[in-house]
Amino acid sequence: MTRETVTHRDGHVYEFGPAMDPVYEAADGESLTIETVDSLNGEIQADSDLLDEIPEEVNAATGPIAVAGASPGDLLAVEIEDVRVAEDRGRVLTAPGFGLRQDDPEIDHPATRITEVAGGGAADGDARGGAIDFEGIDVPIEPVIGTIGVATGGETISTLTPDDHGGNLDTTDVTGGTTVYFPVFQEGAMLAMGDAKAAMADGEMCGTGAEIAVEIDATLSVIEDPAVSPDRPLLDTGDAVKTVASAATLEEAVELANGDMLDLLAHHHGFSRTEAYLFSSLAGGLEISQVVDPQVTARNAVPSEYLSLPF
Amino acid sequence: MTRETVTHRDGHVYEFGPAMDPVYEAADGESLTIETVDSLNGEIQADSDLLDEIPEEVNAATGPIAVAGASPGDLLAVEIEDVRVAEDRGRVLTAPGFGLRQDDPEIDHPATRITEVAGGGAADGDARGGAIDFEGIDVPIEPVIGTIGVATGGETISTLTPDDHGGNLDTTDVTGGTTVYFPVFQEGAMLAMGDAKAAMADGEMCGTGAEIAVEIDATLSVIEDPAVSPDRPLLDTGDAVKTVASAATLEEAVELANGDMLDLLAHHHGFSRTEAYLFSSLAGGLEISQVVDPQVTARNAVPSEYLSLPF
Repeated sequence: MTRETVTHRDGHVYEFGPAMDPVYEAADGESLTIETVDSLNGEIQADSDLLDEIPEEVNAATGPIAVAGASPGDLLAVEIEDVRVAEDRGRVLTAPGFGLRQDDPEIDHPATRITEVAGGGAADGDARGGAIDFEGIDVPIEPVIGTIGVATGGETISTLTPDDHGGNLDTTDVTGGTTVYFPVFQEGAMLAMGDAKAAMADGEMCGTGAEIAVEIDATLSVIEDPAVSPDRPLLDTGDAVKTVASAATLEEAVELANGDMLDLLAHHHGFSRTEAYLFSSLAGGLEISQVVDPQVTARNAVPSEYLSLPF
Repeated sequence: MTRETVTHRDGHVYEFGPAMDPVYEAADGESLTIETVDSLNGEIQADSDLLDEIPEEVNAATGPIAVAGASPGDLLAVEIEDVRVAEDRGRVLTAPGFGLRQDDPEIDHPATRITEVAGGGAADGDARGGAIDFEGIDVPIEPVIGTIGVATGGETISTLTPDDHGGNLDTTDVTGGTTVYFPVFQEGAMLAMGDAKAAMADGEMCGTGAEIAVEIDATLSVIEDPAVSPDRPLLDTGDAVKTVASAATLEEAVELANGDMLDLLAHHHGFSRTEAYLFSSLAGGLEISQVVDPQVTARNAVPSEYLSLPF
């Protein structure tokens, strides 16, 4: 099968809802290249370009892509093979009313720093394995897909917000080599993604990473009748299995992520829920994805030597 | 200098306060071995030993150890060279009213699982690099010192609670190879430590790791007039510098840890606070230490390639 490319010019969304019109219909098992614009639609190109407020339309997500055969109750597996930066610069910035320290009087809101890609990025084919420059410091390019999700069970949710459908998860593991699993809520699943970063810290404290356009190679597969039915996204990074949960507070998010992990540990090892809970307290652990979006996101990781997914 | 040993039998505390009587007076730069009992004073030895409530006296901390020359405004550097398990079993357990899922009706409170050390532990000198057994699964021994701290600036704080003086930080990085830095609040600093685990997940979800007695080799040094004066503990793991903060919520703890990190980044790179904030959002990131103690604990990590401590 020829690898097709789906770009943000073909279609993009600023909301995940229950009814989404696909811009592309993929076969089960199809491998695609997906192109995304940066989260601010290319409007920030210099340190003097300031963001006075978060735009109503932000985190354009390329898609939606319908996957043939995906039905409610299934899982959609998105195997991310590669993420390549596709422009010569990223941008890291603050905006008023946004970010962990939005009330810190010693921090400028708004403020922008352009992070140029060493060697000019995709223009000369030298971006992979490269670095971005922050004020003279090289930061390795470790791309992250910030927003990735599927049609929701009912609500309409902005691409600024993460929830059980995925969305603005801002999770550093969502990169090449990771498979992301989503519960399917609607026929075709309706996958969309965007809001990539060339680099991002766990937490995304100032509200952004180095926001950048990317090209993503991914293979989309439907899992029918999964042996465990997660209510929220799951990750397999190759080194670890991670549950991902978003909620109003980190306390709520970690409790949800741990609860999902106990289901997986109990199924894999034949543990009682009590044993799964005790084991979860010994290996891997809780991780922060982001603390700045309208809901925050956390993970529970267990190393792959103790857990593999039953699908 | 002969290496002296200080044990919990010499003295231990269940509170950190402003006035503490030392059981040992160390020279500045002295290397010691410190022996600690498990957090439950050896009372849990079988799966049938259940903890009906958290004891009033828990996390016995060996010490306090006065360090010659340590005065308020200085830092105390505790270079942890090695942590060795010192008994043949650990124990991981739940107790009513304690832990992330204390209200989960499908989880038993109390419940205990003994985690035996493969090869019998220190008794046959084979514990280092070994594993503990959880229901037939080998979990590598990666010891953690759960409680470590110094005399406080004024309050009296139980060894169950972490705060700016350290205390029950339950932070997986507090192990061999890491140097922990504490602000000194009182003459002599008055270091005490205990509550070790043979293994612990980030988060310590059920309320414990595999609680175990250990022997700790550490070197204690006073840093006068530090170029940056942290208000809370700091870690240097060799791979990363991490700030550590405890507060009522994770949201408050990560904001404190990030604020402390901005001071270090601004000093090291000559960044403005805004630049330090933007950079903190690109590399390393926020980490969870524990979510179960009377205050919760979080970290902000920055890889050592971007930050070294100015002392």
